[in-house]
Parts: sequence; structure tokens; C-alpha cells
Amino acid sequence: MAKNMQVLLAKRPNGWVKETDFEIVESDIAVPGPGEVLIENHWLSLDPYMRGRMSASKSYAASVEIGDVMVGGTVGKVIASQHPKFKEGDHVVGSTGWQLYALSAGDGLNKIDPDAVPLSTYLGVCGMPGATAWIGLLEYCSPKAGETVLVSAATGAVGGVVGQLAKLQGCRAVGIAGGAKKCDHAKTQLGFDACVDYKAGNLHDDLKAACPDGVDCYFENVGGEVMDSALSVLNPFSRVALCGLISGYNATEPYGQKMIRSLLVNRVSLRGFIVFDRPDLYAKAIIELVRWVSQGKIRYHETVAEGLNDAPRAFIGMLKGENLGKQLVKLT
Amino acid sequence: MAKNMQVLLAKRPNGWVKETDFEIVESDIAVPGPGEVLIENHWLSLDPYMRGRMSASKSYAASVEIGDVMVGGTVGKVIASQHPKFKEGDHVVGSTGWQLYALSAGDGLNKIDPDAVPLSTYLGVCGMPGATAWIGLLEYCSPKAGETVLVSAATGAVGGVVGQLAKLQGCRAVGIAGGAKKCDHAKTQLGFDACVDYKAGNLHDDLKAACPDGVDCYFENVGGEVMDSALSVLNPFSRVALCGLISGYNATEPYGQKMIRSLLVNRVSLRGFIVFDRPDLYAKAIIELVRWVSQGKIRYHETVAEGLNDAPRAFIGMLKGENLGKQLVKLT
Repeated sequence: MAKNMQVLLAKRPNGWVKETDFEIVESDIAVPGPGEVLIENHWLSLDPYMRGRMSASKSYAASVEIGDVMVGGTVGKVIASQHPKFKEGDHVVGSTGWQLYALSAGDGLNKIDPDAVPLSTYLGVCGMPGATAWIGLLEYCSPKAGETVLVSAATGAVGGVVGQLAKLQGCRAVGIAGGAKKCDHAKTQLGFDACVDYKAGNLHDDLKAACPDGVDCYFENVGGEVMDSALSVLNPFSRVALCGLISGYNATEPYGQKMIRSLLVNRVSLRGFIVFDRPDLYAKAIIELVRWVSQGKIRYHETVAEGLNDAPRAFIGMLKGENLGKQLVKLT
Repeated sequence: MAKNMQVLLAKRPNGWVKETDFEIVESDIAVPGPGEVLIENHWLSLDPYMRGRMSASKSYAASVEIGDVMVGGTVGKVIASQHPKFKEGDHVVGSTGWQLYALSAGDGLNKIDPDAVPLSTYLGVCGMPGATAWIGLLEYCSPKAGETVLVSAATGAVGGVVGQLAKLQGCRAVGIAGGAKKCDHAKTQLGFDACVDYKAGNLHDDLKAACPDGVDCYFENVGGEVMDSALSVLNPFSRVALCGLISGYNATEPYGQKMIRSLLVNRVSLRGFIVFDRPDLYAKAIIELVRWVSQGKIRYHETVAEGLNDAPRAFIGMLKGENLGKQLVKLT
């Protein structure tokens, strides 16, 4: 008989996450009770926010407890249901964690159309990362045609969508990414007008060259030195969507941002945000993204790890920027 | 015959401003040509923004050139006019610089009512600093009754008004100031509910104690360690009005802000702003402030230097926080 496999949080990381911070266990597959569904997960999403959930310190959501299944977005198929809204064979997206089989009471579980776009995209470009890009850029940055939009982690699951949405708005899209390969991908595959390699050692001057008219909208995923350089090229009355600070997630001491003065001098509007605060926009964003992806107007790239056993390694790699596009784990 | 006296920028300061960065000169009093007025200045305002104008580096307004009269707000009386809108004897507020007599073509010059409130207040609580407080708090922080408003430099010309406006909105008003005397003034004279002395060496814990329900609106005048401590007590969905960063104005190396993560985790809206960007609100703010001051609903305190010769010393003292309330120079 099949067994469930789960990845548990074994230790709270101190600094960089290690594979030994996780424990992989086998268990029996649960049987759904009244109001529950049993899901066979096909895809697991790996996202930077998970690093925050591994820590005990305050974040915008509760920490994962030691010994609990790691949180994570999943796409799967309902294989047994005692829930009125879901039936066997339904494909669903939800946050059911790092495991092969999951029980759910239906909270946060949504049916998806497997024929509209590939199933895996509901975890990326047509899922939470895509909606994050949509809400952060369109709602908090309000880009106008002709403006320059800058995004860090430009080839990540969020950044790649930000750049393409900027192009659809008639903006100049400039990315920041680590390495020539990623920058080439941003320009040739995702349609960025320019992409600056922060690892090339000349970030500030390269940014100025890539943004000859300055930056009107900055979508921040990274923080640290990248953020300081970006703040230094902001235009008056520019808008900053603060989505993530991945460069600091494994740091034991916080980086000191030196360019705060630019926020004052340029009268910048900066907004920290979390996609789940805007359920009013989430569904609209997903509908638009599914349409644009199915029409080929938005492209995407996936980096796929094979099997749940490989999830810890792939997660650590993503935190180090080893992935290109959306980092997924294929479970079946 | 009377002579004009002017304070010129002699040198660009490197780090802390020195009195020798200024030069005081005598000259003849100009005669107004067609479309011009001659003003006898009675009061000169000293404000933190002037430090930025002394530097060559980019700010939101052009630098003062070496040898030019220092910029500054003034209140005075028209003593000769060839301008259709102003006549001899009119009292006016404007930005005519550190000098006893000034020619003006009328740009930015406004008539004021010497009977409504004391003349000097048009440079403070009923002038640019008051309007700065009004716009920053009411427009960019949108405080709601019952919320906690925190303001740094709480006994400065801007901060003192912020706290009193917060009280008028039904908020808890908490200040940060340097020294027991200023904190006492904030509580007993300005009506703050609490004031934390950042010089007492226990800023973070004292702030937490003074803000038991956290901070919903933060009005920032200071930056540096004060800002880091304030960011660490922000509530989810709080608003920050970034008005000034005086702690860094004389620094040769920028301070590194360590609590940027709080802006993300708490989904903060931060807005850098300059009062002069909002002419749509400025006049409304002044009208309300004049009314509240004349009704005794808003109180103010002034620190007055005697005579233009003393302006450089008083300016340096203000940058070091030696003043209480609005720093003025009485010219006549």
C-alpha cells in the first residue's frame, strides 16, 4: 500500500539553511473525514517566504513549529472527498505543505482548470508569485507608459512576471539578476529592455547606464546592496513596491541600508506588501495571468527538482539564486 | 543712512557646519524697480533643510552658491513697492534669505494678518513647519481616533505641531526628544501622552513602554538609530511620513538603517515628502493652523536669537538640537 512522505522542520536554522534542518518521514495516508478531502500532490512550490516561516522571530505569518510539516503551495488531484465543493478527480491548488498526500478541510483550496494552462503554472506565473507581481506592480507602483520599471531578482518567479507586465504597460523594463546567463535569459526570453548583472561588480554604474531616464517604479525582492544601488537611481515621485528582502533572509546581522535619504529627497512612496492581504485583487490577477499565459503574451521558465527527497536541496539552492524562473518540485 | 546686512555662504561644510562657513557683509539697501518690493525683514526662520542647501550634492532644491545670500524664510514689512499686489506697510512672509532688507518680485511672497496671530508664528506653527506637520500627518499618515502617533524631534517646530494635531484627531501622541527637559516640555506644554528621551540610553525598551499598543503612524524627522527604534515598534499596516533625517545632515558617511525588514513584515506605507510639493493643501493647512493657534487649541514655543550676527551660531545650535520649539532670529 502507498505511503505518505512528508518533510518536517527539524531545527530552526541559524544563518544559512542546511539540509539537516529538515527531516523526511514516512507515514500512513490519512482517510478524509466529513468535510475533508484527500489530495494527491503533483507539484510543490518552493518560495523565499518559507525561510521566514522557519524562524521563530515575528513575521507576517506564524512560524512553522519544530516537527510540523513545512508550509508550501501545492497543486494536486482530489482522490477522495467528503467535502461538498470538491469531488474525486478535481485538480486543486492550495497550501498543503511539503508532502505527497494531504488532508484539507477546503480552506484556501481552489479548483483549477488543467486544460487552460499547464498545472505547474498555478504555482508560478498563474499562481501566488504571478499575483504578487501583478498586485505589487499594478496596484502599488502604478506604472505609466513610457516610465522605467526596475525589478530585482528579475528572473525569479515574481520578477520575470513584473518585467513582462511592465512591457505590457508600455514601460521600459530593466532587471537586476545574478550572472550573465540570467541576464541573457531576461532579455532574450522575457523581453526585458536591459538587465544588470549585480555579480559583475559595477552595479551602480551599470544601473545608471541601463536606466538613462532614471527609475520611476522599483519592485524590490532582494534588499541589501542591490536595494541601495536601486534607491540611488530613483526619480522624483517614484514608487517602490517592497515585496521581499531575500539577500537578508539567511543573514545573522541585518544589512544597514545607506540610501534612505533618497526616499526623502525624491519624495518616494514605498509600500511593503504581502499578496494575501489583497484577496480583493488576487482572483482578478489570476484570471488575467491565465489569459495572458494561454495567449502567449506572458512567458515563464521553471526549474524542476525531481521528487520530494530533493526539496531541501532545491530550496537551499533557490535561496542562493541557483534557480532560473519558478523553482518547483515534481512529486509524481 | 541704514545699510543692509547679509549672511553669505562662504564655504561648503564638510561634516558639521562651522561659523566660518558663513560670511557677514554690509551693503547698500537696494531700490525697488518696476514690479519689485523692498522688504524690511523682522524675523528670520532657521530650519534643518538649510543644511542641505549648503551642500553641492543633489537634494530636492538647488544648492546655495558660494557667495550667495543664504536661503531662508522671513517675515517683514514692505517699505517701498512698485508691485501692484503689495503696498507700503503690508506685512509679508516669504523666502527672502538671511538679510535685513530684501528685494522681491513677489514670487512666493504672501501678505499676512499681523492681528490674527503673532508675526513670528508665520515662520513656525502658522507657517512652513506647521504646514509640514499638517500635510505629513493628515495627508500621508491618515491617523484614526484611538491610534498611536509617534513623532521624532517632538519639540521641534514641526514635531510639536504633529503631536498636537494627533491629539486633535483623538490619537495617543508619543514623542521622541533629546533630554528630560524637552520631554517634560512635550508632555506638560504640548499635551503629548508620553515622550521618550533618546539620550537616556534605553530607547527601544522605553519606546515599547510608551507605545503599549504599538505605533500606527510614525512622523520621521531624525533618521539613524531613532528611526531604527521607531521602525521596530510599528504595527501592521502602519504609515510613515518621512519628513526629515536631521541626524544624518552633518554626517560624512550615511547611517545604515537596519530595520527595513519591518517595512515589509508590517506592510508599511512610507512616504517621503516636501511641503512645497503640495500647494493644493498648503493654504488650507495655514488657515486651519491660524484658527487653532488663535483659539488656543495649538500651542507653540520659540527659541529666539537676537540679531542677524547671531544667526550662524543659532543655526548650528539648532542642528545639534539645542533649541526648544521654533528657532528664530529677531532682526529688528
